[in-house]
Amino acid sequence: MTLKIALAQTNFLVGNIAANVNNIIKAANHARDELGADIIVFPELTITGYPAEDLLLRADFIAEANNAVYQLVDQVAGIALVVGFPEHDGDKIYNSAVVLHQGVRLACYRKQALPNYGVFDEQRYFAAGNQPCVFEFNGTFIGLTICEDVWQSGIIDATKQAGAELLLTINASPYNSGKIHQREAIICRQVKAAQIPLVYVNQIGGQDELIFDGASFVADSQGDIVFRAEEFKEQISVIEFDGSKPITNICVPLYNEIASDYQALVLGIKDYVRKNGFQGAILGLSGGIDSALVLALAVDALGHDKVEAVLMPSRYTQAMSIEDAVLEAQALGVKYHIISIEPAVNAFTGMLAEVFAGTTKDATEENIQARCRGVILMALSNKQGKLLLTTGNKSEMSVGYATLYGDMAGGFAPIKDVPKLLVYQLARFRNSLSKVIPERVITRPPSAELAPDQVDEDSLPPYEVLDPILERYVELDQSAEEIIAAGFRREDVARAITLVDRNEYKRRQSPPGIRITTRAFGRDRRYPITSGYRGI
Amino acid sequence: MTLKIALAQTNFLVGNIAANVNNIIKAANHARDELGADIIVFPELTITGYPAEDLLLRADFIAEANNAVYQLVDQVAGIALVVGFPEHDGDKIYNSAVVLHQGVRLACYRKQALPNYGVFDEQRYFAAGNQPCVFEFNGTFIGLTICEDVWQSGIIDATKQAGAELLLTINASPYNSGKIHQREAIICRQVKAAQIPLVYVNQIGGQDELIFDGASFVADSQGDIVFRAEEFKEQISVIEFDGSKPITNICVPLYNEIASDYQALVLGIKDYVRKNGFQGAILGLSGGIDSALVLALAVDALGHDKVEAVLMPSRYTQAMSIEDAVLEAQALGVKYHIISIEPAVNAFTGMLAEVFAGTTKDATEENIQARCRGVILMALSNKQGKLLLTTGNKSEMSVGYATLYGDMAGGFAPIKDVPKLLVYQLARFRNSLSKVIPERVITRPPSAELAPDQVDEDSLPPYEVLDPILERYVELDQSAEEIIAAGFRREDVARAITLVDRNEYKRRQSPPGIRITTRAFGRDRRYPITSGYRGI
Repeated sequence: MTLKIALAQTNFLVGNIAANVNNIIKAANHARDELGADIIVFPELTITGYPAEDLLLRADFIAEANNAVYQLVDQVAGIALVVGFPEHDGDKIYNSAVVLHQGVRLACYRKQALPNYGVFDEQRYFAAGNQPCVFEFNGTFIGLTICEDVWQSGIIDATKQAGAELLLTINASPYNSGKIHQREAIICRQVKAAQIPLVYVNQIGGQDELIFDGASFVADSQGDIVFRAEEFKEQISVIEFDGSKPITNICVPLYNEIASDYQALVLGIKDYVRKNGFQGAILGLSGGIDSALVLALAVDALGHDKVEAVLMPSRYTQAMSIEDAVLEAQALGVKYHIISIEPAVNAFTGMLAEVFAGTTKDATEENIQARCRGVILMALSNKQGKLLLTTGNKSEMSVGYATLYGDMAGGFAPIKDVPKLLVYQLARFRNSLSKVIPERVITRPPSAELAPDQVDEDSLPPYEVLDPILERYVELDQSAEEIIAAGFRREDVARAITLVDRNEYKRRQSPPGIRITTRAFGRDRRYPITSGYRGI
Repeated sequence: MTLKIALAQTNFLVGNIAANVNNIIKAANHARDELGADIIVFPELTITGYPAEDLLLRADFIAEANNAVYQLVDQVAGIALVVGFPEHDGDKIYNSAVVLHQGVRLACYRKQALPNYGVFDEQRYFAAGNQPCVFEFNGTFIGLTICEDVWQSGIIDATKQAGAELLLTINASPYNSGKIHQREAIICRQVKAAQIPLVYVNQIGGQDELIFDGASFVADSQGDIVFRAEEFKEQISVIEFDGSKPITNICVPLYNEIASDYQALVLGIKDYVRKNGFQGAILGLSGGIDSALVLALAVDALGHDKVEAVLMPSRYTQAMSIEDAVLEAQALGVKYHIISIEPAVNAFTGMLAEVFAGTTKDATEENIQARCRGVILMALSNKQGKLLLTTGNKSEMSVGYATLYGDMAGGFAPIKDVPKLLVYQLARFRNSLSKVIPERVITRPPSAELAPDQVDEDSLPPYEVLDPILERYVELDQSAEEIIAAGFRREDVARAITLVDRNEYKRRQSPPGIRITTRAFGRDRRYPITSGYRGI
């Protein structure tokens, strides 16, 4: 018998239960009327959005979510809904998927595998279910699973043994570089082993640090992908099944890794600005590669008329930096201001002259310059209700090559999880679409321009050396000895690791930014500030 | 047979395994030679310190910790050691307590109850043990348990049924107001029910947001406390047992709650400065109650010669604010500077004149003043290697009544978890020891002095109303309707809750501070910034 299943790859707002319910109803009516669907499947924790974090500890929030599901059962007819919600039962909360159809709760499944690693804290909120769930619909026996459940083998097998001929999986699976390939490979391997077709529905959208990439898919019982939705886009797609067998072969091809990263960053900026109600974004444009990339990302996310750039030269700013920054703003059609920081720097120098008498210049004076820029940018942000974007990259965040309350001032840090070498790749990728970053910005040696003739490599190993060391230490948890054994010089490893260890305090106060690696600073990497651990 | 057990209430540094091992050896030798102890019991995860957070995900760190225990078995003779460590077995890590004696590992217990709520993330790191552990020592059968294990009833019972006549519990139990009473009441109830004496060893010290208060104790089989160590002090005490029966009755009385909170804050500042290697601390002194209290706390923690105050008046600063700030610095013998912020404020006003032309004054101009103070303070902090303490309280952090990168600039926020009304109580308590805060500072209406004749109550409900609303909403997770039903005006509740909801982004970038309530902002309360949840 024919079965039409709609995959609702939606972008909901965490916490806004009333709006999410309305969007569920709209999507279900659309899928029924326009697409002829029999069932519509929404992502994990549809009702609350994912991750709702400690909102899940609030009794009022849980009650509202459960009440919403209770009411939803009567609000849509003629189509079955599979919806995720935090199910309240006694003194426990489960991460559940409920099937609603014609005024009846057909089935309710409680997630068994609760991830509690990386960015996930599900054992903080949820009790684990302990049994499979299968329901009959139009003569087909359908099993329910949720996200982490299908990354393991046992749960798929148990659901099949309980009678399932077809699996529905609702997910909130966050993006990182290469994640889509990894996800499809692992899950399709389980599918193939269990010989059961699977419908995988993922949410999309940015939520603070996390990007959800969508790329929902259908695999047949051989583990071959016969349908794939677009990455990074809201989309409702209908797939026809003959019983449990999918009758389709429409796979949107995947972006390459750099293009995916770029799209993830654009989506992250767009959703942070939109979901938090900002009027647009502003940023400081230095003439360097980092701010050039952030400007391009912001314009691609928000449109040129919503983005504003500020050039803030000092006595150490080279003429070409100003020229290039102006060219960038002009190429993207962005309004810009030029405000010299000299009057403020001079004021502070005078105010501190007495207490600093007899001391020698050091990083303090460099930080004052960066902080004057922070004050200017925040003033513009406050006055206009525009989000201030910081432009620091992951290499800088790792080694603390940034000024707290200076260039680190801002509400969102789009490239804080992008290592410097990837910044260059993304800039070249963006230029391949249309030339917006002057070539000189990509080729000149990076500099903070906080002292005469300063370049980054005066105090750091070259990024070709630094970035792989940082990846091994921060993302892969390798020890100094392992990194040295892999062919890096002891002094470079020592310099990099020492700086990473020492700068946790700065990272703790940095704005949130978009996670695109397997370990981002933030909720993903939780280090103590007070620590006697020395990696070397 | 007589048994002398040493309770090692130690203050170790998270992450510094080598130093911690040396301190274990020193303490054990001291307990054996000077105190005649047969066994010395250390706190939970002695080897690594607690909480070591994501250091526990590093293979090198885990290997070092396990190797340290392997070597420790031969390094102390003539006394048994009970030491906590992250036990590595196959692909799992356990939170374990090992008994080392005369070159032999007598027993090893794996913690069964792994807390994963509030500030605890133990299921992120550890697998749970599943059996009790009892060993014989000098004819007495001793059971081992770890922290959360003894807050529940089942594990104590199971350990007794496995033959234990006496329980040792190793702990890292963090402080909050009233916690010591709660802890003793709950655990002694379990002890009384199971009729088994218990030795409770807690660590002390500050670790980022957390304070460990010590207050180690011994309860007899009736659940009566027959020994209690001091709060907030390192201490090694020996208790004599006749078999499993404690022969002692020396209980240090507990401080009252205000005095405990004060000691906790002093210890928190002291350990953050000491363990992170700062030369001392500086802070901005406004003439208001918050900075007056932080100054007193800092001096009590570090000594007057390690603390420096900066007065930064503007055109809106009242003369009495400067007078009072000077009196505070003088009363505590602290060096102070007076630096007017007017030159910097004027410089920024001029720099922004063109882009701000035609706009009206708003919070932007107030924030510029606060940020000029932030730049000055950070310059002094950077130049001297002194920790900048922020002076914002919990009421302000809750409603966002603070300027990011302005008065929120700093490395540590001692009173960020202290509600305003408690700030007054602590100030009066400190004055009861010796008069250091002028009476006028306590009695005048609080003001940020960022605009003419400004007082906090212009934009906030009175603190007598605000603080209890915040406690209900933030700490107790009550809904707006519950709070209104408890007798608060709807408009006050709405104002408070709306501000709490909106200001998560500020809190996310605030420095760490000392947790003294049951729910502090930081690792304890994890809210999304991007959120459609509205408490009202």
